Amino acid sequence: MEQRLAELKARLAEINDLGKTAALLGWDQRVFMPPAGGGVRAEQLATISRIVHERFTDPEVGRLLDELQPYGESLPYDSDDASLIRTTRHDFEKAVRVPADLRVELSRAASHGYDAWHEARATNNAEFLRPHLERNLELRHRYVECFAPYDDPYDVLLDDYERGMKTSEVAAVFDELKPALKAIVADVAEREPVDTSFLEGDFPAEQQKEFALRVLEMLGFDRTAWRFDETAHPFASSMGIDDIRLTGRYDAARFGEGLFAAMHEFGHGAYEHGVDKALDRTPLARGVSMALHESQSRLWENLVGRSRPFWRHFYSQLQEVFPVFGGVDEAAFYRAVNAVKPSLIRVEADQVTYSLHIILRFELEREMLGGLDLRELPQIWNQRMSDYLGIDVPDDAHGVLQDVHWGSGSLGYFPTYALGNVVSLQIWERLAADLPDIEDQFARGEFGQLMTWLREHLYRHGRKFTPAETLEQVTGSGLDAAPYLRYLRRKVEEIYGTSDPSSTPAAVG
Amino acid sequence: MEQRLAELKARLAEINDLGKTAALLGWDQRVFMPPAGGGVRAEQLATISRIVHERFTDPEVGRLLDELQPYGESLPYDSDDASLIRTTRHDFEKAVRVPADLRVELSRAASHGYDAWHEARATNNAEFLRPHLERNLELRHRYVECFAPYDDPYDVLLDDYERGMKTSEVAAVFDELKPALKAIVADVAEREPVDTSFLEGDFPAEQQKEFALRVLEMLGFDRTAWRFDETAHPFASSMGIDDIRLTGRYDAARFGEGLFAAMHEFGHGAYEHGVDKALDRTPLARGVSMALHESQSRLWENLVGRSRPFWRHFYSQLQEVFPVFGGVDEAAFYRAVNAVKPSLIRVEADQVTYSLHIILRFELEREMLGGLDLRELPQIWNQRMSDYLGIDVPDDAHGVLQDVHWGSGSLGYFPTYALGNVVSLQIWERLAADLPDIEDQFARGEFGQLMTWLREHLYRHGRKFTPAETLEQVTGSGLDAAPYLRYLRRKVEEIYGTSDPSSTPAAVG
Repeated sequence: MEQRLAELKARLAEINDLGKTAALLGWDQRVFMPPAGGGVRAEQLATISRIVHERFTDPEVGRLLDELQPYGESLPYDSDDASLIRTTRHDFEKAVRVPADLRVELSRAASHGYDAWHEARATNNAEFLRPHLERNLELRHRYVECFAPYDDPYDVLLDDYERGMKTSEVAAVFDELKPALKAIVADVAEREPVDTSFLEGDFPAEQQKEFALRVLEMLGFDRTAWRFDETAHPFASSMGIDDIRLTGRYDAARFGEGLFAAMHEFGHGAYEHGVDKALDRTPLARGVSMALHESQSRLWENLVGRSRPFWRHFYSQLQEVFPVFGGVDEAAFYRAVNAVKPSLIRVEADQVTYSLHIILRFELEREMLGGLDLRELPQIWNQRMSDYLGIDVPDDAHGVLQDVHWGSGSLGYFPTYALGNVVSLQIWERLAADLPDIEDQFARGEFGQLMTWLREHLYRHGRKFTPAETLEQVTGSGLDAAPYLRYLRRKVEEIYGTSDPSSTPAAVG
Repeated sequence: MEQRLAELKARLAEINDLGKTAALLGWDQRVFMPPAGGGVRAEQLATISRIVHERFTDPEVGRLLDELQPYGESLPYDSDDASLIRTTRHDFEKAVRVPADLRVELSRAASHGYDAWHEARATNNAEFLRPHLERNLELRHRYVECFAPYDDPYDVLLDDYERGMKTSEVAAVFDELKPALKAIVADVAEREPVDTSFLEGDFPAEQQKEFALRVLEMLGFDRTAWRFDETAHPFASSMGIDDIRLTGRYDAARFGEGLFAAMHEFGHGAYEHGVDKALDRTPLARGVSMALHESQSRLWENLVGRSRPFWRHFYSQLQEVFPVFGGVDEAAFYRAVNAVKPSLIRVEADQVTYSLHIILRFELEREMLGGLDLRELPQIWNQRMSDYLGIDVPDDAHGVLQDVHWGSGSLGYFPTYALGNVVSLQIWERLAADLPDIEDQFARGEFGQLMTWLREHLYRHGRKFTPAETLEQVTGSGLDAAPYLRYLRRKVEEIYGTSDPSSTPAAVG
């Protein structure tokens, strides 16, 4: 059995090496590759992806898994080896269901759809994207059929990002969030707006980057195992547990997004870097799901980076870097970076409105899968933006065409962003209970206990357990929107209330 | 047949994608990877290399080649398809000769030997490296036996870098070079030394880099298809014909090496970038051999970058960047960057002494393969350095331990550096005959005709022909040391002669 297990591990290590190699090809493509290299790079990525699929769906992998199943079940459930066998079997059973030619078609359509989306957005022409969207949906239906029977076709798509999550669970959470968030938005609309004018001005990118890096280094970024480069659309990637790549972008006319995006990507990186090193080069060596991953990017971005004690520590340093903030007191700055204001673009949305952008997309994805006439998509989008957020969409580039996902064939991904918000607060309430002085620590510039807690309770496990098991272990419960809503209501009260926020209790915990 | 050919091409394209992926892994490792990523990166490289070997030595590749051979022979010899079939068959026949376990052992020993070399050089302890060198030699003997029968065991090693070249041919060229170069060195030693003192001073790396990039852009570097980054040991790499990566390094206390190394790597990049795009993703899409490759790095570094007309164009720009050169006239500067002075370290050697460093290594490699007692290696090294260059080696770190090659198992590579010098002048004499005003063009900052000539006569062919065929096509002859020696004698006369170099004829051509 040990020899069988060693053979399985050797195969999986090779597959993992190939996957991480693809991650490097993708990182380089987005960060450093000269533009003329794009054609050949797409071929290289396709080749690696094909070989990964071939090697993973090799019948010998199935035989090894069959032979190892009783052995895996004889081991403690939480042992690395039992988890490896169990998780790999799940992955294998999914992988072998999809015929190779469908995979190729999905990948090709995604690639063409991505190009078409670029063109459509640039020319503000949703009709140009429509045939690609139709093709993507047709292929997604074929993909879904590979996994029949299912309760809801959307379950199949969701499962690729959030293993085991049911559409009905997501819908239940969103049904609770939607009216509550709309109410908060309406409440804020009646209050005195927060002054954010001083966040606009002259903030050279180089200085923003230096400040962001200084912050990240206090949080745990370490040059021996991390990089931080610039790119057009920031993302985080990992070539190994000890090789974490973050990327950022800075708007020289505005302070805020650059830093918070950096902290967001840091959260993703911290999760990947915190996986137990014994799991490196296995399929367990990454975050367990997109929602759990997003919970960590949101946690570091919002619950750390937009917290009052965080700025108690860093604001004087920021004032040194950007003397213009010398005339802005800490409380006013804190309010500004927590302002709530409905806006057109999801990726620029505040903490309250963000999840409404997602709920809109989740609803439309289910409707598209149900046969919605795609010619009506822009109009429905615009109507709902008006209904949920009270704003008018001036054109499709700032509406239905703003995100890359649908053009490139990703359906089922969006909900995980909002679930990440929800989960981030579930986790935060637990850790704040364990570490009652955590915010005092932030005010002293200490973030080590936070990181240690997250590694111990979440990061180190990687994909050893299912997302639901992982969530249960770290929070003691299933999905629960209550902590997120409690947090938002308290935060809005703090930011928009009449009292001085410096005298209110800490935002959460 | 066309279907067979398409199948072969598809397989080779995948293998090429994997090879270029390995190139990216290696580039990233040396340029950007955080140091803690090294362990996993080595595994990733090993995995890709193993898969490349498996896929290329797949018996189906052999069957396809067998079936295609008559078809290939029916096509014009210089057609892309005939060349692809012919060259691939050669590569395949070599690849299948070496058992997989020997490949693994070679690779492992190379990796351990590389680490040991680092340690040995840092501690100046040749004895520490000796067991690794012994192991590498033992494995190389086993490797050589895979290719029996052979005239000379060294032929087998040389063939990996310079297909078809015989040790006796190299020895014949080196037998001609060695006394001639020693005589030139002795001649220079009796002349008045050239003043190079103004090349030492304060030359900020950033400004050196900007100047180097400005030069490269005049030569043909183009940001849409090239990158230029910094690293500890400069090299060039290619991820595709339109994705060329150069690297450089700058010594802030010294002007010269940084620029000439950049031009050297540019030459390698120009060759890779000049291959006919129809050959991309095939095994023909790279330089034909190490000597031909090196001929191009040397050509751009020395025959362009160290030429008088080059500086006639660029010197005033350099003086603007580094005002300290305002007090140095162009003729004096030109002499300084062409000074000949025996030195300890190969990679810092001038144009005359460089090949003597190589001849020394070639002789020792043959002797090691013949059973030389490795305990005597440092002493023999030091004796010959005294004999060939008239200098004393103070310690092994500046002697036998200076190069990485032997520790990491590369034997047979060194001679190609000197052959590159030889070939660069053979090519130069031909192109100067075709383009009689080439140096006037340089003086006007025009390098386009040079590039066009080199692409037309050499670069576009990639590996379509053998190195010997390629050399014959471009120069009309086999290896010939005479042009190189003519060039060196004329250059030394120009630099060390009594007349003002500005009034002598152009250096070559």
